[in-house]
Amino acid sequence: MKISYPLILVNCKTYAEATGDKAVRLGKMAESVSNKTGVCIAIAVQPTDIYRVASQCAIPVFAQHIDPQPQGAFTGHVTAEAVKEAGAIGTLLNHSEMRLRVDVIDEAIKRAKSADLLTCACANNAEVSKAVAALNPSMVVVEPPELIGTGISVSTAKPEDVLKTVDAVKLVNPTLPVLCGAGITTGSDVKAALKLGTVGVLVASGVVKAKNPEEVLLDFANACLR
Amino acid sequence: MKISYPLILVNCKTYAEATGDKAVRLGKMAESVSNKTGVCIAIAVQPTDIYRVASQCAIPVFAQHIDPQPQGAFTGHVTAEAVKEAGAIGTLLNHSEMRLRVDVIDEAIKRAKSADLLTCACANNAEVSKAVAALNPSMVVVEPPELIGTGISVSTAKPEDVLKTVDAVKLVNPTLPVLCGAGITTGSDVKAALKLGTVGVLVASGVVKAKNPEEVLLDFANACLR
Amino acid sequence: MKISYPLILVNCKTYAEATGDKAVRLGKMAESVSNKTGVCIAIAVQPTDIYRVASQCAIPVFAQHIDPQPQGAFTGHVTAEAVKEAGAIGTLLNHSEMRLRVDVIDEAIKRAKSADLLTCACANNAEVSKAVAALNPSMVVVEPPELIGTGISVSTAKPEDVLKTVDAVKLVNPTLPVLCGAGITTGSDVKAALKLGTVGVLVASGVVKAKNPEEVLLDFANACLR
Amino acid sequence: MKISYPLILVNCKTYAEATGDKAVRLGKMAESVSNKTGVCIAIAVQPTDIYRVASQCAIPVFAQHIDPQPQGAFTGHVTAEAVKEAGAIGTLLNHSEMRLRVDVIDEAIKRAKSADLLTCACANNAEVSKAVAALNPSMVVVEPPELIGTGISVSTAKPEDVLKTVDAVKLVNPTLPVLCGAGITTGSDVKAALKLGTVGVLVASGVVKAKNPEEVLLDFANACLR
Repeated sequence: MKISYPLILVNCKTYAEATGDKAVRLGKMAESVSNKTGVCIAIAVQPTDIYRVASQCAIPVFAQHIDPQPQGAFTGHVTAEAVKEAGAIGTLLNHSEMRLRVDVIDEAIKRAKSADLLTCACANNAEVSKAVAALNPSMVVVEPPELIGTGISVSTAKPEDVLKTVDAVKLVNPTLPVLCGAGITTGSDVKAALKLGTVGVLVASGVVKAKNPEEVLLDFANACLR
Repeated sequence: MKISYPLILVNCKTYAEATGDKAVRLGKMAESVSNKTGVCIAIAVQPTDIYRVASQCAIPVFAQHIDPQPQGAFTGHVTAEAVKEAGAIGTLLNHSEMRLRVDVIDEAIKRAKSADLLTCACANNAEVSKAVAALNPSMVVVEPPELIGTGISVSTAKPEDVLKTVDAVKLVNPTLPVLCGAGITTGSDVKAALKLGTVGVLVASGVVKAKNPEEVLLDFANACLR
Repeated sequence: MKISYPLILVNCKTYAEATGDKAVRLGKMAESVSNKTGVCIAIAVQPTDIYRVASQCAIPVFAQHIDPQPQGAFTGHVTAEAVKEAGAIGTLLNHSEMRLRVDVIDEAIKRAKSADLLTCACANNAEVSKAVAALNPSMVVVEPPELIGTGISVSTAKPEDVLKTVDAVKLVNPTLPVLCGAGITTGSDVKAALKLGTVGVLVASGVVKAKNPEEVLLDFANACLR
Repeated sequence: MKISYPLILVNCKTYAEATGDKAVRLGKMAESVSNKTGVCIAIAVQPTDIYRVASQCAIPVFAQHIDPQPQGAFTGHVTAEAVKEAGAIGTLLNHSEMRLRVDVIDEAIKRAKSADLLTCACANNAEVSKAVAALNPSMVVVEPPELIGTGISVSTAKPEDVLKTVDAVKLVNPTLPVLCGAGITTGSDVKAALKLGTVGVLVASGVVKAKNPEEVLLDFANACLR
């Protein structure tokens, strides 16, 4: 499973609607929409769900977090090797609900690379996006925390924040893909995001908590094609 | 899957030797020894391995940690509901490699109860054992951190620490089962632990990194019978 | 400077109204009320203010937090020895705005004792109060976090929580003094607290943000005498 | 009190040898050497010592850490405003003994600026130095953690790490001053650091634990003049 851009990355968080069998069902919807449209849809699931989703759905699966610890005597930690072995091809890092120390992000990115995992480093603003870009993740996502879960899209409500981030990241690493997230609920939010220079979106409740997630994903994917 | 005492609880930590397929293999060894001897052997695995081990091995499976967060917008966290759904019947809490805030242990124990999960609260000494006992977990494990992974058994090297813990816990909660851990590598370590008033052991490298884990588990289980 | 019960313990938090010179001014008000009434009033100040308040005010001064680290290579930490040397006679631990790991509270209490500092361990409910009581602090304070800063007093709005805490602590350590806090703003709140079996109150905004803190302290102290 | 480059920044950590009166004595030595040589020597002290050192020594005083919280209900935290009011002109951030989340460093730098405090952001390698440089601190210090406290100087043992850091920071912010630290014990270590393109050193045990700290500081300062 490989990713391609534009990318729709669905974050299941720890929502009941996207846990266990329901994560698998969401993965299958994503697979179906991806097959229909040719747009890459990946899903970031809880560690307990990686194996099931990765073995039952033909889409790229991400972890939501890894710890920087190596394999060994680290009870309770989530290693790069464990999520890889379970079937993930990448991981989110430093999500606003799981912020990390700067040296931990650096170490986790290095461990992910050695385990052949992609890294999607999250940031709350342009400055922090630039900082995490300096640590050479596979991609950066900017998400203003105050918009997460609101349904007010970063790409329409704060376009200048997205533009500023795209520019800031470019200064540090001109080829690093930038995504945006927070409040994305419609295809036009996705379209607006792409127009601002991003190569995709990170979305959670907009899909997971939708009445018909497959319909929303289709709307998103079509927006990537127009 | 239910537990019974005496209990041998095997902590896989994030050892390569007990990740993915190898966690399943270890679970099957535990199942085999448990069937032969009638002694309860449970296994605490990484979150990525709970589903596979629980669905393939007829032994009680524990998580190594849960967060106190409920289901919802908590990216990267491990909820009681998620580990339960994946097949765990309990969880370690506050292991020396994953120490927690006192209010977090309280909250996690309450969440575990509402998700019908057992809780095995770890502590580093008699005082902290007494403190976590006050939070009403299903059992307490005392592990002097300086002996973890050494092969020097707490039950033979520091019997007074174990006795002191058993007494301290009894003052707070007379019926709460107490286990001990750290350095347990032989059946006589297990036997010594039981003689000190514990109802079982928490063991990691002594089993996971043994040349023949099944043989070690058999030695441990037989020690519980004598 | 020694403490006595009933005790009014004023927590300056990081309020602008109780920083630097203003902390000293508040300390002098407490000293004046204490002299007038004979009731012990102590003040918990920011580490930057301990020296000034302790050297200019004849009242017991507490730190708001200490780390468990010893003296040595621990940049940015606050040691028991440093706050003692600056003039504190005790410290808060595990305040709801500064929650700590259970093993850290245990270690910090032990370090405080060796530096001859009193410890006032905070807790959010009866279970956690019992847990921290097991670690042998000098006193315990229960503060339901949802009432902190509201002006709705724990002693009048949740008397059963205070009673339950007093009883729970007694089981673990019959002679350990218990205080309560959260929402204390009037003398009758203080009186109600004492009637419930506590030996004092922890108060912050009710004094620090009052128009006339000295008047409020006098009201509190008089309530201790009636 | 202003700083100038080359800068010798002495970190007192929580060493007994640099606590309370002894921090003041060390500050006076620094003042004396600074007066003799004209080289700027600043001192980073524990929060409990800022007021005393700043009011008794005519040298720039730094805090060792600030939290990102504003003034208000944040018991146990160290605010920018409090250390400023006590007399500090700047603060270390993200020292290897006090690592911080990337968003916390960003927020702390912004709060420090609004309180008119300088910020000296620490990093463990070139990548993390580049990351923290993106957050616009007043200066960056690279310190390989494995050399801290060893007496083996980063500037002579790992000159390539220092060069790589100076280059990496320049890419993000061409005018940002870079210092280095870890193992600095002699004037020639300082000289080597300056030759590599840094504008100063962060030093701790090399001065604090020296038999004659004033002599060492004089050696360091003279190395800045040659």
